[in-house]
Amino acid sequence: MLNPRFDEQPDISELQAALTTRLVSDPQLVAPYARDTSRAVATGAPIAVVLAESTADVSTALAWATRAGVPVSVRGAGTGLAGGAMGYDGGLVVSLERMTAILDIDVDNRLATVQPGVITATLDATAREHGLFFPPDPASARISTVGGNIATNAGGLRCVAHGVTTDSVAALEVVLADGRVMRTGARTRKNVVGYDLTRLFVGSEGTLGIITQAIVRLKPVAPGSPRSFRASFSSLEDAGLAVTAIVNGPTQPEVLELMDSLSVEIIESFHPSGLEVPAGAMLVGQTVGLDAETKAEDITTLCRTLGADDTEISETDALLEARRLSNPALNARGLKISCDVGVPVAALARMFHGVAEVSAAHSKRVSTVAHAGDGNLHCTVESPDTPTGISEADAVIDDITRLALSLGGTISGEHGIGSVKRHELGWQLDEVALDVQRSIKAALDPGGILTPDRAI
Amino acid sequence: MLNPRFDEQPDISELQAALTTRLVSDPQLVAPYARDTSRAVATGAPIAVVLAESTADVSTALAWATRAGVPVSVRGAGTGLAGGAMGYDGGLVVSLERMTAILDIDVDNRLATVQPGVITATLDATAREHGLFFPPDPASARISTVGGNIATNAGGLRCVAHGVTTDSVAALEVVLADGRVMRTGARTRKNVVGYDLTRLFVGSEGTLGIITQAIVRLKPVAPGSPRSFRASFSSLEDAGLAVTAIVNGPTQPEVLELMDSLSVEIIESFHPSGLEVPAGAMLVGQTVGLDAETKAEDITTLCRTLGADDTEISETDALLEARRLSNPALNARGLKISCDVGVPVAALARMFHGVAEVSAAHSKRVSTVAHAGDGNLHCTVESPDTPTGISEADAVIDDITRLALSLGGTISGEHGIGSVKRHELGWQLDEVALDVQRSIKAALDPGGILTPDRAI
Repeated sequence: MLNPRFDEQPDISELQAALTTRLVSDPQLVAPYARDTSRAVATGAPIAVVLAESTADVSTALAWATRAGVPVSVRGAGTGLAGGAMGYDGGLVVSLERMTAILDIDVDNRLATVQPGVITATLDATAREHGLFFPPDPASARISTVGGNIATNAGGLRCVAHGVTTDSVAALEVVLADGRVMRTGARTRKNVVGYDLTRLFVGSEGTLGIITQAIVRLKPVAPGSPRSFRASFSSLEDAGLAVTAIVNGPTQPEVLELMDSLSVEIIESFHPSGLEVPAGAMLVGQTVGLDAETKAEDITTLCRTLGADDTEISETDALLEARRLSNPALNARGLKISCDVGVPVAALARMFHGVAEVSAAHSKRVSTVAHAGDGNLHCTVESPDTPTGISEADAVIDDITRLALSLGGTISGEHGIGSVKRHELGWQLDEVALDVQRSIKAALDPGGILTPDRAI
Repeated sequence: MLNPRFDEQPDISELQAALTTRLVSDPQLVAPYARDTSRAVATGAPIAVVLAESTADVSTALAWATRAGVPVSVRGAGTGLAGGAMGYDGGLVVSLERMTAILDIDVDNRLATVQPGVITATLDATAREHGLFFPPDPASARISTVGGNIATNAGGLRCVAHGVTTDSVAALEVVLADGRVMRTGARTRKNVVGYDLTRLFVGSEGTLGIITQAIVRLKPVAPGSPRSFRASFSSLEDAGLAVTAIVNGPTQPEVLELMDSLSVEIIESFHPSGLEVPAGAMLVGQTVGLDAETKAEDITTLCRTLGADDTEISETDALLEARRLSNPALNARGLKISCDVGVPVAALARMFHGVAEVSAAHSKRVSTVAHAGDGNLHCTVESPDTPTGISEADAVIDDITRLALSLGGTISGEHGIGSVKRHELGWQLDEVALDVQRSIKAALDPGGILTPDRAI
């Protein structure tokens, strides 16, 4: 339920007077800030956008919004896939796109202090100048922001080796709904001082506060040149079994992705790179370290033992580049009805089998790419872009999501709930957990202004 | 502030009638459950102990305590070092020592499902039967419980390689203050579904709910035989600089500990093992993998380059065993005024220098052992066991704690706040963060019955 006060017309001149930065209120300029990259549909228009340049700007904006009872949406680059950054009718947008400073790289402690609007790949590239890298690596790393990655606890390609975003966040500066500023966490590896507020805010999708600064952990770049590898299987389930075997084997890759035949076909037709479409699925991955070649050989040998028809080891990044093109390729076909479910990695083959059954039952083609080493799948449904077609595709995704849950999985591995998946929350969380989430939200944002009616 | 209702005499016959397990109320039997292993002093006596055997027992106990307004302390093995499990006068103790089942080892997904009372080393040993191990490794692993480790986000020796306890917890079952039961987390590697309640409860020290079941992550045991290594330095600061160099070097140990000369002397006199007392400090550590010997050579070579007088590589665990005896050795001398502060690892040498200055300024001998690879120090003050002696030692610890904070550190790396460190909370956390902690506590435990007036 929206706060009843949200129905009143707020006076933004008071906010403009308090801000040192410009408030954008021209509807044409505001409109792009009301959308994200998901299939969520805007319902109405925000009244203004704060292009925040400092923590003080964010604080001023939220204090005003709480006083005025105005709902606030928060955005970095707007690349979210769950509708979490969609604008509210009559609401305020706080954009962090101008807070792009990398304030410090502490090489000896492997920490970077950044503003939330820095592009993830820019932080990674800057760290690499010091022999370090930023482990989180969402496929959107070149266009998404660190703040957005933190707010959604983003995943990506390197999670199988380095964990998800929350594993790389040491400390945060957060502006609360009433404008107060708080610091969480520490620069140390270990810290047990009160509740872990840092990790409470990671993945909170803009509902508890706005992250205005982060101290993130970096890792040393492995020596030597990485290798990429490919293993093509005539059976999707065999590919799934191979993933389980690799993850439980002696040689660990840094990246382990899967593309089924339909997704390879879609990527190749979007950007031909000579990838042969497998009958079942293709695993692509990366190994690092001085023994990267040996590791890639170990893994591809294991894959052949487990039924791979064809394997390849490469010194280039082309195989992973193809994988990274999956989203643009799907977008180019107008295919947006997808999911980011996860299953325990040993359940992957059963999951692929079940997705094929769901696909057949609904007579809809489903393409799957997966951060396979994590058991994290992106299934996309081919369906006409009509109300009926969308509704039919939604039903397929619902069945795939329930299938993942039946295998001990999750409804969202890395995109978050936002507005798109909110109807699924109760499928995974029990009533008590839902109630606890709501009570925490109410404790931190009693006016309910921050990203209301989303995420939880 | 205690709830005013805490002053009334509760009727435990109602609780006994509702429980399927025995309620212990004989004061002599209750007394041991009122203490932990810290230097906190009991103030009064609990009225009864619930020796819980099931989630239902815990739920019944907390629902009753909330209705009756009775303060509750929670304990596993009572090995806590911060006074978090001390009993309350007129309070109820919930002991989880009988909930020791290892319910499942899921080898292919590397997950174990356990009750909270299982001894940490028992879980580790059981996992090893399957070629896996439980990464968290507090020095107390043979006597402390997994539930207690989770409640305090315990650290230990292997954190430098594998992170702290929170990094190994996938999901929890929690009983809330009103007796409701909730499940958090997932069996998947990635999960962004509502707030990260799992990590909110890890380290919450019994103040938000009682953990009655946990799904924890296991890792594969490295192949080959581990090696332990030692590097003795005539200068404590040089040893600190060596730690920074090792952690930022190409070869990573699984364990990297430091003992200063006084602590080696104390350990040797408690349990002589032929360790030569160094003039400054001794680093001891462990390497694993097929190349464990080469790694140990790389690290000891680096140490000699950085000033080590003497190094040693061993196939036995004797060096680390000596380190693990630190706590019993200190206890045997009656030395309990200590801390578990942390600093960023690059600040270790400065920290050691500062501790020496504090020691000199107070004319008190201070011994230091450290999980050096994490920058986590245990400094213990030699002082008479008299009110004046204790007060003087406390002043030394306060100065050491402020020194750690001045270097970007933390007041507690792995023991938690409990009751012993509560006066230090405001030194690290800002007012807004403190207020947010309290508002979360109030939202989840409005009656304030769970471990009141501790941790936050």
